Amino acid sequence: MNSLQQFRLLIEEELQKINYPTTPEKLYHPIEYVLSLGGKRMRPILLLMAHQLYSKDVSKAISPAIAVEVFHNFTLLHDDIMDNAPLRRGRKTVHEKWDNNVAVLSGDTMMIQAYQLVSTVDSDILKEVLEVFSKAATEVCEGQQWDMDFENQLDVSISEYLKMIEYKTSVLLAASLKMGAVIGRSSSEDADNLYEFGRNLGIAFQLQDDFLDAFGNPETFGKKVGGDILANKKTYLYLKAMEMSDIAQKEKLEDYFSDKYFNENEKVKSVKEIFSELNIPTLTKQLMMEYHEKAISHLDMVTSEKKEPLYAFLKLLFDREN
Amino acid sequence: MNSLQQFRLLIEEELQKINYPTTPEKLYHPIEYVLSLGGKRMRPILLLMAHQLYSKDVSKAISPAIAVEVFHNFTLLHDDIMDNAPLRRGRKTVHEKWDNNVAVLSGDTMMIQAYQLVSTVDSDILKEVLEVFSKAATEVCEGQQWDMDFENQLDVSISEYLKMIEYKTSVLLAASLKMGAVIGRSSSEDADNLYEFGRNLGIAFQLQDDFLDAFGNPETFGKKVGGDILANKKTYLYLKAMEMSDIAQKEKLEDYFSDKYFNENEKVKSVKEIFSELNIPTLTKQLMMEYHEKAISHLDMVTSEKKEPLYAFLKLLFDREN
Repeated sequence: MNSLQQFRLLIEEELQKINYPTTPEKLYHPIEYVLSLGGKRMRPILLLMAHQLYSKDVSKAISPAIAVEVFHNFTLLHDDIMDNAPLRRGRKTVHEKWDNNVAVLSGDTMMIQAYQLVSTVDSDILKEVLEVFSKAATEVCEGQQWDMDFENQLDVSISEYLKMIEYKTSVLLAASLKMGAVIGRSSSEDADNLYEFGRNLGIAFQLQDDFLDAFGNPETFGKKVGGDILANKKTYLYLKAMEMSDIAQKEKLEDYFSDKYFNENEKVKSVKEIFSELNIPTLTKQLMMEYHEKAISHLDMVTSEKKEPLYAFLKLLFDREN
Repeated sequence: MNSLQQFRLLIEEELQKINYPTTPEKLYHPIEYVLSLGGKRMRPILLLMAHQLYSKDVSKAISPAIAVEVFHNFTLLHDDIMDNAPLRRGRKTVHEKWDNNVAVLSGDTMMIQAYQLVSTVDSDILKEVLEVFSKAATEVCEGQQWDMDFENQLDVSISEYLKMIEYKTSVLLAASLKMGAVIGRSSSEDADNLYEFGRNLGIAFQLQDDFLDAFGNPETFGKKVGGDILANKKTYLYLKAMEMSDIAQKEKLEDYFSDKYFNENEKVKSVKEIFSELNIPTLTKQLMMEYHEKAISHLDMVTSEKKEPLYAFLKLLFDREN
């Protein structure tokens, strides 16, 4: 049984092994750049972990694992264009380092490459693996569109928000696990339970992201605490607070989450105070734990004896402080 | 045997049958819009024509035919962002009608949909069909990158230009034909000859495009004659003229193809005069005919008895005036 660290190392090695054509340079250099920026590599690791539940031969899972990582990085690349983001993992985004056209086209090429890597699986399971992958890929795009729509939408319900983060974040984690299972020739029940494990884990993970962004420890968080508040992002914390607040609190929140100018520290402090008055940190953690427990219940149902790395991964994920 | 018109009708019907989700509206409405703008539908028609050489059951070829059309329209959508084009087929481009973000993301979704449609072919040939499709898809991106690179590249050789148009235009025509053949269970020799037929046909077609843009009949061309000259595009005509010209002509051409201001009609007239002095129209037509003949020679080698629609299609294509 492989440890998390071994899986991560394997992914990094395989990513470095990819030989991109040298020309057109503006097409392939950005792909190498974006894949070299690092990241948690959660999706390929989950795919490999699901695969090893059923098979000792990791070789069949490597290309599809790289595929989900390449696809994920393609979505980051195009999301960064859409969000006009200057930085990704502390480095210049592709559209900043090159330009928008380069970012659009190298992203497109990455998506094709992801499909090429998925297509290396055995012929008899290729159709099923592609179905899982394409469904998730479509949902990721839908999630991104909803996320952009919500910026200009006055009323976003909590169920709409949860659906959005499920599509934007969870389904690719879920699909990675299911693909690993299918490639490892699991039963379809196990594959579906692993999908549900990933889907719930992903939602819990995103809720934790929302929580840490406002209430993380500034010493260990890595980013500026309060970034979502400063960006007027309609996170779960904000939406739940709007639901729970009285008229005065609601007015205050709406005021802070408008485009008016406030002193940054003052704004973060005041919004967090309202969140705390309304018990939002606890409510967020409770909802996160609900999804976390649902995730575990699905993993419990998986019939393999080699689930330890997945439990360990889940534990590590929710012990994180950034 | 189906006629061109019947194939075209079938494609239009099938495109209209696609049921897109109603939400997120900004993701799916642009896709419906772009597919409703029409076009020659060359790629899906060629796929169906290649398929009917070997099979009477058109049903197996329909989804892949729609796939290549969806993919082609995805490339147009993203190309229009990159070229900052206001119009496509006389209507507003997606990034003009909505915005850049919508165009990026609905394009991405179209590419995924194209893969989903390709993935409907029988399992035993899926891997082969995907390989043909993904290779062409990658080359289309490479071709687009070269096309953009050439805008700022002082010296573009004719062989570089021919490679660019092969990748940007021909390979998807070629792949469509090959996919149709493989789905119809042709021999691999036939599939390869159909690929080469399409590859040469596509290059000839693009050379004809270059020719018509400068020397087409203004009454029947449909667009403004001289558009490429006004846009300082390095077409085959320009590159061949630069190769053939003496110092004085070269200086004149470089002057006209710079960003300096010239009276539009005057510029088109003068450049065309230089082209004519250098015998460029004839040289372009000769090269076009070379590729045209290569295309025919590959079609001649295809063993099926039902090639009439493909010969007819080729004839129609090169009798066109727009």
